[in-house]
Amino acid sequence: MNKLKGIIVPMVTPLDHDRQIDYPGAVRLVEHMIKGGVHAIFVLGTTGESQSLSIEDRKKFVGFVGNAISGRVPYLVCVTDTSIEDSCCLARKAKESGACAVVAAPPYYFSPSQNDIINWYRALADSSPLPLYLYNMPGNVKVSIAPATVKVLASHPNIYGIKDSSANMTYFQTVKYLTEDEEDFSLYVGPEELTGECVLMGADGGVNGGANMFPELYVKMYEAASQGDIRTVRWLQNCIMKISTSIYTVGDCPSSYLQGLKCALELMGICHGGLALPYVSIGDEGRERIRTALQSINPSEWE
Amino acid sequence: MNKLKGIIVPMVTPLDHDRQIDYPGAVRLVEHMIKGGVHAIFVLGTTGESQSLSIEDRKKFVGFVGNAISGRVPYLVCVTDTSIEDSCCLARKAKESGACAVVAAPPYYFSPSQNDIINWYRALADSSPLPLYLYNMPGNVKVSIAPATVKVLASHPNIYGIKDSSANMTYFQTVKYLTEDEEDFSLYVGPEELTGECVLMGADGGVNGGANMFPELYVKMYEAASQGDIRTVRWLQNCIMKISTSIYTVGDCPSSYLQGLKCALELMGICHGGLALPYVSIGDEGRERIRTALQSINPSEWE
Amino acid sequence: MNKLKGIIVPMVTPLDHDRQIDYPGAVRLVEHMIKGGVHAIFVLGTTGESQSLSIEDRKKFVGFVGNAISGRVPYLVCVTDTSIEDSCCLARKAKESGACAVVAAPPYYFSPSQNDIINWYRALADSSPLPLYLYNMPGNVKVSIAPATVKVLASHPNIYGIKDSSANMTYFQTVKYLTEDEEDFSLYVGPEELTGECVLMGADGGVNGGANMFPELYVKMYEAASQGDIRTVRWLQNCIMKISTSIYTVGDCPSSYLQGLKCALELMGICHGGLALPYVSIGDEGRERIRTALQSINPSEWE
Amino acid sequence: MNKLKGIIVPMVTPLDHDRQIDYPGAVRLVEHMIKGGVHAIFVLGTTGESQSLSIEDRKKFVGFVGNAISGRVPYLVCVTDTSIEDSCCLARKAKESGACAVVAAPPYYFSPSQNDIINWYRALADSSPLPLYLYNMPGNVKVSIAPATVKVLASHPNIYGIKDSSANMTYFQTVKYLTEDEEDFSLYVGPEELTGECVLMGADGGVNGGANMFPELYVKMYEAASQGDIRTVRWLQNCIMKISTSIYTVGDCPSSYLQGLKCALELMGICHGGLALPYVSIGDEGRERIRTALQSINPSEWE
Repeated sequence: MNKLKGIIVPMVTPLDHDRQIDYPGAVRLVEHMIKGGVHAIFVLGTTGESQSLSIEDRKKFVGFVGNAISGRVPYLVCVTDTSIEDSCCLARKAKESGACAVVAAPPYYFSPSQNDIINWYRALADSSPLPLYLYNMPGNVKVSIAPATVKVLASHPNIYGIKDSSANMTYFQTVKYLTEDEEDFSLYVGPEELTGECVLMGADGGVNGGANMFPELYVKMYEAASQGDIRTVRWLQNCIMKISTSIYTVGDCPSSYLQGLKCALELMGICHGGLALPYVSIGDEGRERIRTALQSINPSEWE
Repeated sequence: MNKLKGIIVPMVTPLDHDRQIDYPGAVRLVEHMIKGGVHAIFVLGTTGESQSLSIEDRKKFVGFVGNAISGRVPYLVCVTDTSIEDSCCLARKAKESGACAVVAAPPYYFSPSQNDIINWYRALADSSPLPLYLYNMPGNVKVSIAPATVKVLASHPNIYGIKDSSANMTYFQTVKYLTEDEEDFSLYVGPEELTGECVLMGADGGVNGGANMFPELYVKMYEAASQGDIRTVRWLQNCIMKISTSIYTVGDCPSSYLQGLKCALELMGICHGGLALPYVSIGDEGRERIRTALQSINPSEWE
Repeated sequence: MNKLKGIIVPMVTPLDHDRQIDYPGAVRLVEHMIKGGVHAIFVLGTTGESQSLSIEDRKKFVGFVGNAISGRVPYLVCVTDTSIEDSCCLARKAKESGACAVVAAPPYYFSPSQNDIINWYRALADSSPLPLYLYNMPGNVKVSIAPATVKVLASHPNIYGIKDSSANMTYFQTVKYLTEDEEDFSLYVGPEELTGECVLMGADGGVNGGANMFPELYVKMYEAASQGDIRTVRWLQNCIMKISTSIYTVGDCPSSYLQGLKCALELMGICHGGLALPYVSIGDEGRERIRTALQSINPSEWE
Repeated sequence: MNKLKGIIVPMVTPLDHDRQIDYPGAVRLVEHMIKGGVHAIFVLGTTGESQSLSIEDRKKFVGFVGNAISGRVPYLVCVTDTSIEDSCCLARKAKESGACAVVAAPPYYFSPSQNDIINWYRALADSSPLPLYLYNMPGNVKVSIAPATVKVLASHPNIYGIKDSSANMTYFQTVKYLTEDEEDFSLYVGPEELTGECVLMGADGGVNGGANMFPELYVKMYEAASQGDIRTVRWLQNCIMKISTSIYTVGDCPSSYLQGLKCALELMGICHGGLALPYVSIGDEGRERIRTALQSINPSEWE
């Protein structure tokens, strides 16, 4: 597999307001992102609310999106679960559905030691029919994959890289430094606020939720940063920060990011904006604030 | 449903060393606990490693144990999951399998607000064909069901009580005080080290893992405490602390409790002692320390 | 030193609304508590807002209260600080002022390892001219003194016991069990909601903030529990829970406990109710809610 | 005051192995840093172990270093304390000693709300005779100054900027974006692993502990990044990561960074390497590992 570089969109799972998957919306969203030039599509991550969907719905969605993409861009599937059997089952489904790789965070109910994390990933990488990327997500998993653990795992032949959503850049820089002998090991950053600086410093790309809404913006950021165009990076950074501080923080609760992103996608006419329990859609007042925020975001600033 | 009182055993899920469910061991364990006089059996809790089992294995185990118990003692099933659909599916399976109630901790991947927790439990209680008990487990779930939230939920007609595994007794006393107008609302304590004092203070019972090994001890503790026999409570407390400090802490890692408990059950000849990933069985040295600890525990002290 | 048993009041530091120490209020408070029968008075603990006072004010207050008590009840001084020199300096001042013992939590800026905690307490116990009690306060210190660490320290000739404010009763029971060979090692519980059950189970007393307001109530609780009078314990527990849930939670912020307690003392005419920065006194609406709560608390229920 | 830009060294407090301040070492260290071209010197920060020193020693050290610097570079003093009186007292001492500004983290014993943080900083900024910089240090303070709080405080006439040691770059980017209307508000990053990318993205400098040892390296990094020389930034980043991963992690305990840094300074002949309690100097084996690490670091790579 060639090293994957650029913007990998963590696709939302469109839901209607009865919490059923909005399949037509999913098709529109896939088309929107591909038209926007994204380098890959990634389903069932945190932004995809995977953990809130039943195993059956997850499998069905993996197949559906694989079909919608039909090989036009690389397709990745998150198989994070607390049961390694269910993770492996999702990995097989991903393979069948045309995915090129799977991604998994550590198990998140029992608190694992670093040794437990190593055992877990080795077992998963051994069983997975597809290349595996690590996913560091301490905000939800509540444990971090220690840099020394990443270094150990980077030598496994079926482990190809890491997506780091910690926002802790000392962590990211340490992982980058410790794995630089593994030439094929890729590093992606989760928070879209950090894609610019990470790519400037040598990372391979970003897994950025905002690219569901504005794929071109994040693609432009990746391109500017990979070309070392600092002036453009700083300009685009302000565009991204405007989105981050106006769309993702309205609800002032743990689901604000997802509420804002899904509400915006609905207001943009791309898909329904329902959330899966335990989260709920933003209220009417929040919706109007998102509407106002969207109106003040002007894609011509970056297009 | 009459109020359930006494020792509710959070049954381990016996696994062999290939991580397959040890069904004959499960039968022996059920018989051992019933013979020991326990007041109820509870499967798929934290001690039952539910989150580490596939949804399919969980359903199968619920049916199997229901059959093994055959109504001899009340049967409870934990339906904790991050997907409310999968929780409801387990609740239906529990009903089919003869359970009298289900138990659920809040969802544990996305961090829920207290409002999210209320929505979640209401949705689950509305759908569940069986009475529902709340399960406060901040150590694994990483969020606590606030006392004010418990008070709100206690008035739901299908919510019957709470199992609190926080070990935070200010929390427990506050919940007890705030729900005392709800006469049918029951309170159980998770950590076996606290059953004595909780029952002395008026709680309804304990959900104590050690009762997998020594059911009589915990039953005696419940009886002594419910009769206000402080002298006996203090004596039995020492027996329980001896187990707690010698069996559950050998591994010195997050899985020490489960490693110790399952190793002891294997050494006692009751069932295989395998653990599900991300955890692994205790090593040989630990096993010998558990063996020594078991030899120094003398059931005649409480029988 | 004879083992200290009973209710040790963590005395508030009365402040006026310019944040200056209210010395006349301190005298009235000392008299109120002694009249209420408390077994000891403890200054500069968390309830005493020690960390928010300058070193000079702390020393002055230690001397002043020692003088006000004049040996009528045992006097303890908290010397918690991040600088061991300043802790030792306070310990010498305590000795001069007639105190019988000092109390110290671990240092709370740098995160100490358990070995660091052992080194720290040994150095402090070696230098202190008075007996030293450990103080477990993970809520503010953010690290717990592990039970195995307590066991190591319990054998030091100048370490006499522990005050545990964790509210984690598994912790408390474990410490109690591990130190039971050290006959002279005392155990006190911080949260007043837990004094009843802890003393029933064999603890030596409670360090309970509510005893600033209603010393008789906590003294009665200690007496009932130490005599094994469960019926009275349960009755008094409800009185304590009423205070806990109505006085300490009004502000709904990290300072609610202190705001409520100090406002109540002011409304009772005992002392001014100012708080030291970073905290501020409760607002007018909160004050009225505390007033209403106080009116519904009827000391004749326990006197 | 002109905006301060570049490398501000958080100077260690040299201690001998009896934990007394090594004044001759402090002089040598000041000369070493000034010779290395640093843009400012900052005493009594976290790297300076301020909290572990007595108030008296802190004041004495502030005066001594001010004298040693004698105005050759800007001088900053950290006045972080849990007592605002003691903070103000240190600020006055800083003024007397020739400092140009003070720096303060929020109080760290009581958990403050964001409102409490605002009150605290306003009171401190109002009283301080010198400009005040905020210091975000959630690792030790355990609370973060929320970006919205920084925005509120940035408009205070005596608050000039923030040093962020969170390593959370989403936080840093958010603070940067929210304060960009305050032209004179400066942003410095704590972790030296992040100075390169932060300055590339527009930050004003770094407060980097490694500059005690190798001031030229960090100065070069600042210069390369402020000139947009990405190639050099990436090269120097590797030099910094080599130091970070070989000097600061030997002890594998909470004090590893300080142990490594101070041991290296001792091995380099600059000052004694003692640590203040609760921390202790690295052991002999660790010392040899630091010696080996130092030998493999070649300043000619960046000079």
